[in-house]
Amino acid sequence: MREVAMPSETELLVCVKCRRGQDIPADDRRPGQALYDALADRPLPEGLRLTAVECLQNCDAGCTVALRGGDRWTYVFGNVDEASHPDMLLDGAARYHATGDGLIPWRERPEHFKRNCVARIPPLTPNTPVEAD
Amino acid sequence: MREVAMPSETELLVCVKCRRGQDIPADDRRPGQALYDALADRPLPEGLRLTAVECLQNCDAGCTVALRGGDRWTYVFGNVDEASHPDMLLDGAARYHATGDGLIPWRERPEHFKRNCVARIPPLTPNTPVEAD
Repeated sequence: MREVAMPSETELLVCVKCRRGQDIPADDRRPGQALYDALADRPLPEGLRLTAVECLQNCDAGCTVALRGGDRWTYVFGNVDEASHPDMLLDGAARYHATGDGLIPWRERPEHFKRNCVARIPPLTPNTPVEAD
Repeated sequence: MREVAMPSETELLVCVKCRRGQDIPADDRRPGQALYDALADRPLPEGLRLTAVECLQNCDAGCTVALRGGDRWTYVFGNVDEASHPDMLLDGAARYHATGDGLIPWRERPEHFKRNCVARIPPLTPNTPVEAD
């Protein structure tokens, strides 16, 4: 049982079971676990919690992560690479955390976030007008 | 500003802006709005709230809906058809609402849910062991 995130925190969820469509030997580390490990090895931005999750069910376009927390929109991103994307993810997570609603201004949004958003889900307590981006 | 769902309620979120990849004239009703209207015209299962959302950002595989509520996993489903799927969605939503964790038993799960899950996100307060389906 993991700890529960504080409401104001941002949570970066990482699917650690992701095979990214590869045929992974049973005793090998999966790409999703490698992504999680790479993130856990780095200093995390203030206010960010890293959470391992088993299967975010975006298996055809993994690795997959999600950002959520507070009154922000939840975002799910796919096609994440465990070798080249950890720093980008932490930068994007910090930018997300800096917003009140989860909508990173388009010009500041990592290119990968722009092109690989799988879905987003509104906050339970919407505090902002609905926007189309 | 919509009302806030009660914690125990299940919310069926419908992207009302979805064009499903079609070129829709500006004054025509979009497929997403037609889906919402078809659902709103039907009696809703007990405990279910219907919510219109502008853009769940699964635009390439719309129409798109999400189910969430209480301590359940949130599920996002794509490729929803506004003409043939409303009854299936309400049946699936009722089955989802009947669970404590959002995991509809596989044999009871609508076929469309099995094949068109875009992503799922764990509850903030996990109350069940993590499962792979």
